[in-house]
Amino acid sequence: MRILILGGDGYLGWPTAMHFAGGGHEVLAVDNYLRRTIAQQTQSEALMASPNLHARAKLFESLSGHRIQVQIGDCADFRFLEDVVRSFLPDAIVHYAEQPSAPYSMIGFSEAQQTLNNNLNATFNVIWAVLMHAPDCQIVKLGTMGEYGTPNVDIEEGWIEIEHKGRKEKFLYPRQAGSLYHTTKVLDTDLLWFYVRTYGLRVTDLMQGPVYGLSTQEAELDERLMPNFHYDDIFGTVVNRFLVQAVAGVPLTVYGKGEQVRGYLNLNDTLQCVGLAVEKPAANGELRILNQFTELFSVNELADRVQRAGKRLGLEVKVQTLANPRKEKEEHYYNPVHKGLLELGLKPHLMTEEVLSDMLAKIIRCKEQIDATKILPRVRWDTAGTKSGH
Amino acid sequence: MRILILGGDGYLGWPTAMHFAGGGHEVLAVDNYLRRTIAQQTQSEALMASPNLHARAKLFESLSGHRIQVQIGDCADFRFLEDVVRSFLPDAIVHYAEQPSAPYSMIGFSEAQQTLNNNLNATFNVIWAVLMHAPDCQIVKLGTMGEYGTPNVDIEEGWIEIEHKGRKEKFLYPRQAGSLYHTTKVLDTDLLWFYVRTYGLRVTDLMQGPVYGLSTQEAELDERLMPNFHYDDIFGTVVNRFLVQAVAGVPLTVYGKGEQVRGYLNLNDTLQCVGLAVEKPAANGELRILNQFTELFSVNELADRVQRAGKRLGLEVKVQTLANPRKEKEEHYYNPVHKGLLELGLKPHLMTEEVLSDMLAKIIRCKEQIDATKILPRVRWDTAGTKSGH
Repeated sequence: MRILILGGDGYLGWPTAMHFAGGGHEVLAVDNYLRRTIAQQTQSEALMASPNLHARAKLFESLSGHRIQVQIGDCADFRFLEDVVRSFLPDAIVHYAEQPSAPYSMIGFSEAQQTLNNNLNATFNVIWAVLMHAPDCQIVKLGTMGEYGTPNVDIEEGWIEIEHKGRKEKFLYPRQAGSLYHTTKVLDTDLLWFYVRTYGLRVTDLMQGPVYGLSTQEAELDERLMPNFHYDDIFGTVVNRFLVQAVAGVPLTVYGKGEQVRGYLNLNDTLQCVGLAVEKPAANGELRILNQFTELFSVNELADRVQRAGKRLGLEVKVQTLANPRKEKEEHYYNPVHKGLLELGLKPHLMTEEVLSDMLAKIIRCKEQIDATKILPRVRWDTAGTKSGH
Repeated sequence: MRILILGGDGYLGWPTAMHFAGGGHEVLAVDNYLRRTIAQQTQSEALMASPNLHARAKLFESLSGHRIQVQIGDCADFRFLEDVVRSFLPDAIVHYAEQPSAPYSMIGFSEAQQTLNNNLNATFNVIWAVLMHAPDCQIVKLGTMGEYGTPNVDIEEGWIEIEHKGRKEKFLYPRQAGSLYHTTKVLDTDLLWFYVRTYGLRVTDLMQGPVYGLSTQEAELDERLMPNFHYDDIFGTVVNRFLVQAVAGVPLTVYGKGEQVRGYLNLNDTLQCVGLAVEKPAANGELRILNQFTELFSVNELADRVQRAGKRLGLEVKVQTLANPRKEKEEHYYNPVHKGLLELGLKPHLMTEEVLSDMLAKIIRCKEQIDATKILPRVRWDTAGTKSGH
């Protein structure tokens, strides 16, 4: 298959590109390095410096024999994206091309504006490039479990049948997200659903939970092929951040009561899920929504697991509670369904002590590069509104 | 009160500005003439040419003694809007500043892109200008009943309590709109709700049905103060369009089966509703959603009423069924609640034969200006996706 990866330089995009290329598909990876730019601007650089996309693709080809084409440009620019789609004519587009940080989107006006316009226009342009030039191409869009928020009822997979005053209707499951970033993903879903039902596009919208992981099968070929690994408060997801804190001797920073529950998954399972979505596509006119995670944990449980895994390696890991910089329920009901991907064939890699110890061991080798000033939260949800940010 | 009207040149914006000014409020009307520009580009000019906003404000002041300040600029440009809000410091903002045509948003890529970016950025900028410079100012936002679509269950006022698997939660009522324009209003509501619950803004989101009407109390002072009245397929709402067709001797164009039911209201009731929303504001942290219409009619019922009113004036009005250019259910359940505005004090002006005859009589005086080529639908939903529009 011909697979276009938008956001191909990212934490998920680059491993996805290698994974599909390794599987014998024709892959084109596109990125404009927005995440790298923001990481520099906010002093949130990854643990290990990654070569640029062209260099990584060249290295990967020399080691594996599998080619990844690369194009640098902005998916929020329609003329660019249209050219890419018209000339590559993909069978599937994996759309990761969004500003991916919730805290960044909450810094102030300019960051919020950039997040809104980048994310919405990228999605809008993907829709239109497909409509005009590759109407049978499946769009596989990375959404987030955060679109749903933490409602007091079970979270279904994208849709809900409601009985109301004696009548029934099936609706998109109502969404209520906790940051502007997550809200842009809600808007993406609204837009995709409008164009799917109006023009018969085929779309899979993956509601993904926080991902953890440091490497993938293809990345094992060479350290320079590793996904960019963030441990900071802007781009670092909680498990990755905790593991670095454990190695750096910084107490694990639990926000608030630590009873926030989310659905997590291993980076290798992201590759599996996206692979399954591409190989078993949605039908024309179908918006298929899949909840993409494998296990539920509270933040306190994560801290506990990292502590135990650290002990195995002789690390003394402490836990410190911080005032919650976010606006979120710290104690809440959480029972999301996640059957669809298992039915498609997902075989989960669970968060065992071995998996965590293995990640810790790799991070220990980079211990010198850890900058502890990047770990503590620098963005507070409750003050962001008053900052002009420009 | 200090009231800022965004989109102050529009069919609703201009009468609203006069109405508040006439009521003794300080009014600033802002517009960038986007609707006039699009009307020219699509050959959809209004029945009567209106003087520009400065000229109309001057005329209104000379006749009524009430001043309306005017500023010309683009609300999707944050620097402009921020300056306006920072210097005028409104108590309330009435936000009409959106590309208002569903058919226009369905022409092709460029029109869809313009609608998305104009509408979302205008709303985003209003939110941020208020957050930064007038946090206690109420935003009164014009949404649309079209956000809800035509679900098979009762439509509540903005919110719904759902019982699901034995647990309960209150959600934003799930939305599913029939055009990209209507979908941008769904996204507006999502954005407003995120910022209301995060930063405690006060917002009233008015879910308005199609409006009909040709004049208001203040416009009676001089013909040049009349709202711009569209009867074309791009900007003309169905009742206004039917009345012009009746006068022009063009059969009333019913799309499809004509059993599409919507909630309608008189232009004078829009003024009342917006007035009530401004005078009795939402609380801080409240997104108050009100369904703004007074009566339900099917398209066939409207055609019938126009026919009967025409007969009174000696017009022989025919009805012609056209293949539906839109994608919508032509037979459907429709039972939307509309209590909130009545509870606030709305006294409806109903669509009596007298009201329709009065409008017909006024239109007859402009009969020479009717261009029948503007009436038939020029935009088909099902082919728009294939047009690049640029």
